[in-house]
Amino acid sequence: MKKLIKNGTVVTATDQYEADVLIEDGIIAAIGRNLKENVDEIIDAKGAYLFPGGIDPHTHLDMPFGGSVTSDDFETGTIAAAYGGTTTVIDFCLTDKGVPLKNSIQTWHEKSKDKAVIDYGFHLMISEVNENVLNEIPKIIEEDGITSFKVFMAYKNVFQADDGTLFRTLLTAKEHGALVMVHAENGDVIDYLVDKALKEGNTDPIYHALTRPPEVEGEATGRAAQLTGLADSQVYVVHVSCAAAVEKIAEARQKGYQVWGETCPQYLVLDQSYLEKPNFEGAKYVWSPPLREKWNQEVLWNALKNGQLQTLGSDQCSFNFNGQKELGRGDFTKIPNGGPIIEDRFSLFYSEGVEKGRISINQFVDIVSTRIAKLFGLFPQKGTIAVGSDADIVIFDPNAERTISAETHHMNVDYSAFEGMKITGEPISVLSRGEFVIREKQFVGKPGTGKYLKRKRFGSNTKATEKVFQ
Amino acid sequence: MKKLIKNGTVVTATDQYEADVLIEDGIIAAIGRNLKENVDEIIDAKGAYLFPGGIDPHTHLDMPFGGSVTSDDFETGTIAAAYGGTTTVIDFCLTDKGVPLKNSIQTWHEKSKDKAVIDYGFHLMISEVNENVLNEIPKIIEEDGITSFKVFMAYKNVFQADDGTLFRTLLTAKEHGALVMVHAENGDVIDYLVDKALKEGNTDPIYHALTRPPEVEGEATGRAAQLTGLADSQVYVVHVSCAAAVEKIAEARQKGYQVWGETCPQYLVLDQSYLEKPNFEGAKYVWSPPLREKWNQEVLWNALKNGQLQTLGSDQCSFNFNGQKELGRGDFTKIPNGGPIIEDRFSLFYSEGVEKGRISINQFVDIVSTRIAKLFGLFPQKGTIAVGSDADIVIFDPNAERTISAETHHMNVDYSAFEGMKITGEPISVLSRGEFVIREKQFVGKPGTGKYLKRKRFGSNTKATEKVFQ
Amino acid sequence: MKKLIKNGTVVTATDQYEADVLIEDGIIAAIGRNLKENVDEIIDAKGAYLFPGGIDPHTHLDMPFGGSVTSDDFETGTIAAAYGGTTTVIDFCLTDKGVPLKNSIQTWHEKSKDKAVIDYGFHLMISEVNENVLNEIPKIIEEDGITSFKVFMAYKNVFQADDGTLFRTLLTAKEHGALVMVHAENGDVIDYLVDKALKEGNTDPIYHALTRPPEVEGEATGRAAQLTGLADSQVYVVHVSCAAAVEKIAEARQKGYQVWGETCPQYLVLDQSYLEKPNFEGAKYVWSPPLREKWNQEVLWNALKNGQLQTLGSDQCSFNFNGQKELGRGDFTKIPNGGPIIEDRFSLFYSEGVEKGRISINQFVDIVSTRIAKLFGLFPQKGTIAVGSDADIVIFDPNAERTISAETHHMNVDYSAFEGMKITGEPISVLSRGEFVIREKQFVGKPGTGKYLKRKRFGSNTKATEKVFQ
Amino acid sequence: MKKLIKNGTVVTATDQYEADVLIEDGIIAAIGRNLKENVDEIIDAKGAYLFPGGIDPHTHLDMPFGGSVTSDDFETGTIAAAYGGTTTVIDFCLTDKGVPLKNSIQTWHEKSKDKAVIDYGFHLMISEVNENVLNEIPKIIEEDGITSFKVFMAYKNVFQADDGTLFRTLLTAKEHGALVMVHAENGDVIDYLVDKALKEGNTDPIYHALTRPPEVEGEATGRAAQLTGLADSQVYVVHVSCAAAVEKIAEARQKGYQVWGETCPQYLVLDQSYLEKPNFEGAKYVWSPPLREKWNQEVLWNALKNGQLQTLGSDQCSFNFNGQKELGRGDFTKIPNGGPIIEDRFSLFYSEGVEKGRISINQFVDIVSTRIAKLFGLFPQKGTIAVGSDADIVIFDPNAERTISAETHHMNVDYSAFEGMKITGEPISVLSRGEFVIREKQFVGKPGTGKYLKRKRFGSNTKATEKVFQ
Repeated sequence: MKKLIKNGTVVTATDQYEADVLIEDGIIAAIGRNLKENVDEIIDAKGAYLFPGGIDPHTHLDMPFGGSVTSDDFETGTIAAAYGGTTTVIDFCLTDKGVPLKNSIQTWHEKSKDKAVIDYGFHLMISEVNENVLNEIPKIIEEDGITSFKVFMAYKNVFQADDGTLFRTLLTAKEHGALVMVHAENGDVIDYLVDKALKEGNTDPIYHALTRPPEVEGEATGRAAQLTGLADSQVYVVHVSCAAAVEKIAEARQKGYQVWGETCPQYLVLDQSYLEKPNFEGAKYVWSPPLREKWNQEVLWNALKNGQLQTLGSDQCSFNFNGQKELGRGDFTKIPNGGPIIEDRFSLFYSEGVEKGRISINQFVDIVSTRIAKLFGLFPQKGTIAVGSDADIVIFDPNAERTISAETHHMNVDYSAFEGMKITGEPISVLSRGEFVIREKQFVGKPGTGKYLKRKRFGSNTKATEKVFQ
Repeated sequence: MKKLIKNGTVVTATDQYEADVLIEDGIIAAIGRNLKENVDEIIDAKGAYLFPGGIDPHTHLDMPFGGSVTSDDFETGTIAAAYGGTTTVIDFCLTDKGVPLKNSIQTWHEKSKDKAVIDYGFHLMISEVNENVLNEIPKIIEEDGITSFKVFMAYKNVFQADDGTLFRTLLTAKEHGALVMVHAENGDVIDYLVDKALKEGNTDPIYHALTRPPEVEGEATGRAAQLTGLADSQVYVVHVSCAAAVEKIAEARQKGYQVWGETCPQYLVLDQSYLEKPNFEGAKYVWSPPLREKWNQEVLWNALKNGQLQTLGSDQCSFNFNGQKELGRGDFTKIPNGGPIIEDRFSLFYSEGVEKGRISINQFVDIVSTRIAKLFGLFPQKGTIAVGSDADIVIFDPNAERTISAETHHMNVDYSAFEGMKITGEPISVLSRGEFVIREKQFVGKPGTGKYLKRKRFGSNTKATEKVFQ
Repeated sequence: MKKLIKNGTVVTATDQYEADVLIEDGIIAAIGRNLKENVDEIIDAKGAYLFPGGIDPHTHLDMPFGGSVTSDDFETGTIAAAYGGTTTVIDFCLTDKGVPLKNSIQTWHEKSKDKAVIDYGFHLMISEVNENVLNEIPKIIEEDGITSFKVFMAYKNVFQADDGTLFRTLLTAKEHGALVMVHAENGDVIDYLVDKALKEGNTDPIYHALTRPPEVEGEATGRAAQLTGLADSQVYVVHVSCAAAVEKIAEARQKGYQVWGETCPQYLVLDQSYLEKPNFEGAKYVWSPPLREKWNQEVLWNALKNGQLQTLGSDQCSFNFNGQKELGRGDFTKIPNGGPIIEDRFSLFYSEGVEKGRISINQFVDIVSTRIAKLFGLFPQKGTIAVGSDADIVIFDPNAERTISAETHHMNVDYSAFEGMKITGEPISVLSRGEFVIREKQFVGKPGTGKYLKRKRFGSNTKATEKVFQ
Repeated sequence: MKKLIKNGTVVTATDQYEADVLIEDGIIAAIGRNLKENVDEIIDAKGAYLFPGGIDPHTHLDMPFGGSVTSDDFETGTIAAAYGGTTTVIDFCLTDKGVPLKNSIQTWHEKSKDKAVIDYGFHLMISEVNENVLNEIPKIIEEDGITSFKVFMAYKNVFQADDGTLFRTLLTAKEHGALVMVHAENGDVIDYLVDKALKEGNTDPIYHALTRPPEVEGEATGRAAQLTGLADSQVYVVHVSCAAAVEKIAEARQKGYQVWGETCPQYLVLDQSYLEKPNFEGAKYVWSPPLREKWNQEVLWNALKNGQLQTLGSDQCSFNFNGQKELGRGDFTKIPNGGPIIEDRFSLFYSEGVEKGRISINQFVDIVSTRIAKLFGLFPQKGTIAVGSDADIVIFDPNAERTISAETHHMNVDYSAFEGMKITGEPISVLSRGEFVIREKQFVGKPGTGKYLKRKRFGSNTKATEKVFQ
């Protein structure tokens, strides 16, 4: 089975050139000028960019949260992702203390296997480290290809791990070739501030932000970075929202520590004032960490530009406003945290980043795809347009204009955090391993065709194991 | 005319994959698996890496200096470069106050045109800014394709420009799309320290280093960075040698200033103690800035790894020990500054960087080639292996081992600064625009085949002009 | 009762001048030239400095620790202190979880009341914060005059408090006018490293240092500082040992946070290599935090000089080598932590600081006495030579020379950490509230004459409460 | 001749206590409770603070500037100073290139000798360093007691010295025991920006600020600090106006460099928006460096509080609005730089600093008097209330309220920069060497009674020469 995409402009994290792309059995077989091949199908991509498919390193599909469950599952979520130019997701597999990690992985396989329309992998949450857990981790890396583990420094008495757990996870990750991910907020301080706010009758959504000030994120980020340096291990800070955290990451990197940071579209274009929207609409904008004062946006963009932050995740975690977000009326702590972003991450970032001149088009590809593949053991299978890689390709019209709206998006949720925002540039067609999932803006894929991805160990791409992917 | 390189592993600043590379009329026409083409020649690269040819952004060929002239001219220099895997050089064209810039460019064309065996461009020195100079600069950018201008903050009463000149050069560069390069050392302080040393009878080579302490480089680097930020312009700091300068570059970049830094192989592997070698041998190691205390090396490597320094230049500036370096016996100020590096820059950096696990193989390509092409307006013609780019390709054996020695090198100079150093990895064959210059370790090129390169304006690769190439 | 000290040179944190000092009823009544008064006694201090008595803010007298008890109690400890020029100590009162704080204070009163020969106060340890504790704190401040509370970030499962406890203690301190003290080391990480060392059979004293690396102190110091800033409260970091912690304090102070740091003589003149002394002698040098690499000493001195660190404590905590330190043979965790310093703190600091030109004589007074009095609510009763202050005066011969030795010191312990060290400058006579405790180098005081000091609230010296004592 | 000031509260940089002060022959002879002496006069200071007289380290009296001369000379200027609580001024003696420094000093003696009503000294400007100057400096230090030298980094082609001059001045100062003062702004950049503004027709007063952005002050301050560190010398940065400069001073001090910074009342309470006042009134607020954006004020206050800035100067340099400031209508470069502050420096700083809780009362004394005396070789003769010191005393009513106005001030100038500002605290009587200059708010002194002060060498107060006065 062969396809030829003609006349497009191939864009990678380094290159940009006009060429034809030949796909054979789902793999990129050749790239060249005027390739002459007998193929089953020719696709004309004149005027379009050919991007490697986006990789979303941070999603929560079909995830239970405080009695509710996210409104998007692996079917609606991956369909929306594909519409938006994303061809791989790595979802967070939650675990329970005292339960074998394997069981949780099994649960996550059940959630995803007949539903996903694009390829997917799992990160695994670590909430305690004991002998059982230490024994299981190497097996999971080896057998399940899960090579990233997440530790929460917040959510006291729920997910929060202590520093000893974080440190031991870092050491284990170093030993077995995995990447530790941290949710970096000081949960102890938040816990106090939240209690105090509630006691004082401060229950509106804005208090979600006011009880999680940037200092608690800055502190925890610095702590995670220092423990990583001490362990000579590697850490990936998810959803960096503010200058206070960026500074800590930059400082650690200058010391040679292996610290990477991810930010999300919401932190780049929305701000804390959204939480004050009337009629409880502020609840739509409840993320943890929370949206920040607007001036932080420039710091985040600049950090992406100069390489202090490296990736963009969506932190997709959708809850309907009606019936779910509303649970928090009268008590902001009852508002399910998170929002629907999986579909817009890729094109919103293109529009605000490349189109507005904040980053180069190569940086765009690196940040939404290539670097993520490298950090999480998927490269070069995913994350680039190169001979031998999976033909996960986005045919992208840089001149298309659209307005984001819940009425037109494909996520299973009743609002958009970016409602009314105009963006430039749009995926027209999207291929996963050479097969169309989206064709001319229509979903043509099939639930269950997405494959589970066993990922390589951290640093395995290279002789010089862990020191090289910055 | 078609060539096919088969079975090699293509490596770019992003990718690494096995593929055949088809060259047609000096251009890369296709990359693929099992390409079947009727070609004039098939080259087997099994077991080899295919790197884009190295670009040396910092050479001084056939350059007069204090009554002497560098021992390598455009012929011997570019032949040596090619042996070492470098297929493009950008040489510094010196200018004289009061003389039209055009005249100096003409002189440099005469030095190079029938001699170069690989492609080359020029940077232009700016020592004063007056109405004439301001009028000439836009024409030179437009007509001569020279889009980088160098300002010296050192060499008091010789090359040194004052801050007003630097600031106006930055503003002009911003206006017309050029990159300002600075030699960042505080010349006033050096001038005093040198006078004092000589008066005190301290004339040995080590005093070259002691009269140019790292603080003078740190100070000037910080000053250049701040003036750049104030001008909202762009600056490239050549030959960064020490932590004091790295800190200033990192600090400026965190503020969003467009500041880039180049280091050189000598600063990565040699140190100040070399200047104390007996029998005046220390003179071989006289560079400005000088070699530093050894601990700076780790800071430089780390800065390359985490993106605070972006490129590697050779600062090739060769003088024979006998007859030239010796001029400084009894007076270190008479030692011609500089050394022979053009041939070893590429493979030494591979060996110490990739082979020893300090940087990834993709970073290697970025630092010795791709980023330089992007910063200096040569991309994507040079700096990558991609369809449509010039077929400047290095066929590199990563397992070859050799010992650097003046006896075997091809530079026209009687010593090597790296004499006896063992390195792993070596260019076997080197193509410039599809033609062999080096074939199976033998020079097969011809003086005069190297072409002068008109370079694009700074930032012209992208819609978002100047903000994007970090 | 009147005494007149004639011909001495009065030195305060600001001044230095020759004058007579008139003492009346234990209080300084006048300072002047050629004071003519009918007095009971005239003391000639020609050639001597008159310093305000030293204040030691950090002692552990008669303290149980891991089955043992410190070898100096309030009698031997305060006698030694007086010999050394210290006229006030503030001792740490330990508490137990679940036991009323009052009970612990009562215990400490019993330990001290008939024994102390100089005045003394207590700090109180806080290991948990619950409703009972929150209710007790204001009463203790009001009734007991204890206005400083210590939180441990180390000693996992023993003293260690979590961040929530620290944060609430900071908020309570702010509300009621107290100063929070922190032992800043990350106990979770230490706990792991210690376990690992023991498992690997690394049991020698040096492993005490290697399992508490400077990063764990830097991290915890930064965390305490950030929580203080967030709480808009005040914190005092005890026993700062290294550059990593100094940096965090300086950074916080530049942000305007109210953070102060204390260092100790041992960190200024000893270093990590002492822990490697043969025959288990390294055990004599086991402190927490541990002694550091020697280069940190210059950073600490410089921080004292430029005001980033503000005070000098002894962390007096003496255990005999024989019978006590020896408990740790074969297991460094069994070595009682701490050493005998109370006697040498004052004059060692004079000799190494003033005599060697590292700090001014006024800074000396500020650091060993005045600033401590101000921070801990004892000023101007203690900490200065001024009209109305207690006549706690040290008559100090700046030219005397002596050699520190366990054979001659007055502490009840069988070794000196500074054995053989030669110092210049020595207290000749010491008065507490106008009465001689030491006279011509002989103890002439009486156990039980030292009074318990109720201290003022933090910030109570001034209209502008908490912002002013830096 | 004896005076006794009874019942006041003595305040020094360290102490605060109620006591009587006995003055004998202009010197403080005793301080005590209920001093009983036969005296010529008893002054009741009940309810008042007794402060050491303020020292203004930065005045320009009777100074020519661009064809004009400051409106206050040594008579009106020192009378106003005395009204405001200042009893010593150190004025800047300008010099001319090629003219012996001695001549300039002679000129300044002529300006001052029969006019000053309080004691005074001189700083000396250094605009070039040649053999003559290097020979004169040691004699001037020795014979004239001038131990501080000022170098301008701005005012291109007028006062501006190059880095070589600054560096050699630093080295000479180190050798002979003097303090170098710098006006830290990058004159080259300003020169360009001013030319550009004028060419573009931007001639209003606000362009004075816009052509001297904070970056040029930050850069020059950092440069001066680095040269000082390299020279191992000492530097005092005058009129620090902004965060960009404070950061550089703090950074240098953390490295142990001997760098001190002075700010001025105008930078603490006024801001850049004042330059936009209509009707050319903005000209009243033209200082160099210019007033800054308001947020810098908090940074400056904080730097005073935590010791990163050490002193307060007035930069007194008064020009009438009518006839002088007006010269700049239509060309901001013609506006004489400077303003009238000498009278309000002391009490304005008390009101905004102590009364508003930003600094402690001891810090107030240190910053307006004590530290200045120490840095400039006047201590302990000046700068404190201590036995043996000159009886320069301010009897200060902390509760008095007044409104600053040109109508009531005593400077010879037709406007006040602080017109209408309400302040709390006022000098009631002021003594210079025991004689009233101001008595019950009336001037009772006599021109010519102020004495010229030969100052001690830098660092001469102490054995540890230059390292100690921070």
